[in-house]
Amino acid sequence: MPSTQQRFFEDLTVGLTFRSATATVTAEGIKSFAAEFDPQAFHLDETAAETSLFAGLAASGWHTAAIAMRLFVESDLRPAGGTIGAGVEDLRWPKPVRPGDVLHIEGEVIDVRASRSRPELGIVKLRATAYNQLNEAVQIWTPVLMVRRRPV
Amino acid sequence: MPSTQQRFFEDLTVGLTFRSATATVTAEGIKSFAAEFDPQAFHLDETAAETSLFAGLAASGWHTAAIAMRLFVESDLRPAGGTIGAGVEDLRWPKPVRPGDVLHIEGEVIDVRASRSRPELGIVKLRATAYNQLNEAVQIWTPVLMVRRRPV
Repeated sequence: MPSTQQRFFEDLTVGLTFRSATATVTAEGIKSFAAEFDPQAFHLDETAAETSLFAGLAASGWHTAAIAMRLFVESDLRPAGGTIGAGVEDLRWPKPVRPGDVLHIEGEVIDVRASRSRPELGIVKLRATAYNQLNEAVQIWTPVLMVRRRPV
Repeated sequence: MPSTQQRFFEDLTVGLTFRSATATVTAEGIKSFAAEFDPQAFHLDETAAETSLFAGLAASGWHTAAIAMRLFVESDLRPAGGTIGAGVEDLRWPKPVRPGDVLHIEGEVIDVRASRSRPELGIVKLRATAYNQLNEAVQIWTPVLMVRRRPV
């Protein structure tokens, strides 16, 4: 977690944008994630993947989501208390992620509101997109975060 | 991928239910996932986690999602061509997942339609819940799958 320049709920205003560094996806990483969490042929084996819907080795969508989370945590958004999701309103994988892809994420605050149950927290909704090196969207999602309010 | 008893799109009718075996979550697993994909103190270190929003070590939501995917792939749903998500309409983590939790998933087909762009595929929407050993919901999501139609 970044220890400086954290943004409290009050700092995360609608329209604020953020972006991340990049992460490179490897065939090894795709296969090892799949072996643990999504053991299907098109995520595990190049040859078997050829005849699948993906027509070639592709990352599990949940692997893409996990990589995107890493980029999100290390992005310049820096919410106070950490990047803590209550959930995601919509999550899509418009294109497969392939070995060698270089991903980054960009996003924007689209809604903010006070928490009904926890007065020390605010709820921040974002729209985020993960892009590959060709600027094709590979994941589009709407995370909803819980963010600490500025202490008074 | 299961090689027998796969279900084609035509077999996945609204109201069909499915369930999985169980998976046990460990502190080690929580930390190693977090180190790679969600490096925040409350997923990495018991002591630091005490003062976080989670009040104790908790799995990354994306780790829970990945475990749920494993359970989903190995459940008795067995869609033909594999368990391939186009996306998720809604994904929530109502309670944290803790070390020692034993998870399983249950779900139901809630909508089916032909694919507009790919005549060999159908689109199947599910409502799924991951439960812990106390039958508390730890993840609720609405995955949308692409499933092969029965060859004619």
